[in-house]
Amino acid sequence: MSTLPEILNTTPVATSRLFSIEQVDLRFSNGTETCFERLVSQGAGAVMVVPMQNEQELLLIREYAVGVERYELSFVKGRIDPGETAQQAAHRELREETGFDAGRMEALAAVSLTPAYSNYRTHIFLAQDLFSSPLPGDEPEPLQTKSWPLSDLPALRDREDFSDARSILATYLTTERINS
Amino acid sequence: MSTLPEILNTTPVATSRLFSIEQVDLRFSNGTETCFERLVSQGAGAVMVVPMQNEQELLLIREYAVGVERYELSFVKGRIDPGETAQQAAHRELREETGFDAGRMEALAAVSLTPAYSNYRTHIFLAQDLFSSPLPGDEPEPLQTKSWPLSDLPALRDREDFSDARSILATYLTTERINS
Repeated sequence: MSTLPEILNTTPVATSRLFSIEQVDLRFSNGTETCFERLVSQGAGAVMVVPMQNEQELLLIREYAVGVERYELSFVKGRIDPGETAQQAAHRELREETGFDAGRMEALAAVSLTPAYSNYRTHIFLAQDLFSSPLPGDEPEPLQTKSWPLSDLPALRDREDFSDARSILATYLTTERINS
Repeated sequence: MSTLPEILNTTPVATSRLFSIEQVDLRFSNGTETCFERLVSQGAGAVMVVPMQNEQELLLIREYAVGVERYELSFVKGRIDPGETAQQAAHRELREETGFDAGRMEALAAVSLTPAYSNYRTHIFLAQDLFSSPLPGDEPEPLQTKSWPLSDLPALRDREDFSDARSILATYLTTERINS
C-alpha cells in the first residue's frame, strides 16, 4: 500500500450554479509537490435506475442531453436530493420519469466517473414489480419512454444515442443479476 | 423522432486550467425556453486501454485519484493530445504508463459520461501482443502496475478502489470480445 499524498491546500477556483472547481495542492510521499484541479459535486451524488417493465423488457427514457446536443436513450437518472438516501431518490426519480414505482429496488453498484477529476458518484439500481404511482417531474418537455427487449441488449449497446458509460454498464449488471 | 431544441445562446460562465463551464439557453420544440449548464472539454476526449499481459492476465494501473482522495486501480488512461487520433493516444498512453506497446490495438467502444452535463468522450481499447517500448510519462510519482487474472474479474469489480464506471464496463467489454 502507498501512503496517501498530503493535501496541503484546497482553493476554490470557480463556481457556477451546478459546478464547483477546486485547486488541490499536495505532496506525494516521495516529496514531489504538485497541484491538481477537481470538480466538486454539490450534492450527495446521483442515481440510475433500470426499470424492468416485465420479465422480457426494460424501460428506457429518451431525453435531450445538452452536453452532446442530441436526444439520448438512457435509464432513469437524477440527483439525490438533500436528506434523501440513494434508495429513496431511486424510487422518486422512477415515479417522476416513468410514472411507476417499484415493489423491489435492488442496488447493483455504486460507481465513480473520472475519479482523477471528480468525486461524482452514481448508485445504480434495478427496479422490479412496477406499479402505477406517478409524481410530477420538472422536465422542460414530457419525457418519452421506450420498451426494449432483454433479449436484444447487444443492439441497444451499439446505438450511437445510447452512449452513457453508466447506462451501458447497467445493461451488463442487469443481465448478470437476472441470470444469477 | 423529436425535433432538436433550438440553441438560442451559449455563454461562458467559468473557465479554469482544465475545465470550462457554459450556460446554454434553448427553446424546446414545444416552445418551452430554459437554460442548462454544461462542462465543455477542452480537447479531443480521452482514451482507456485494457492491456492483456498474456492470455490469462490483464494489467492494471494503481494511481492516486484526487477526486476521490485515494489510490484507485484502473486501466491505462489519458487525454488525446492535439493532432493525435484516439488510436495513437492509446499506443502512447500504454507506453507511458506500462512501458509496453501493443501489436494489436482494437477499439471496444466510445462512451460518454453524464451526456446531460458534458461532451466528455472516452474511447476504450483492448491492447494485445505487448512488447517492451517505454516512453517517459509525466506522473508525480512512478505508477504501479498490477496483474489481474481474467478468471477473477468478479472480485475486481467488487473492489472499493476499482470504482470508475468506464473501468468496470471495460472488464465486460473485454470478456465479451475475448469470448467472441
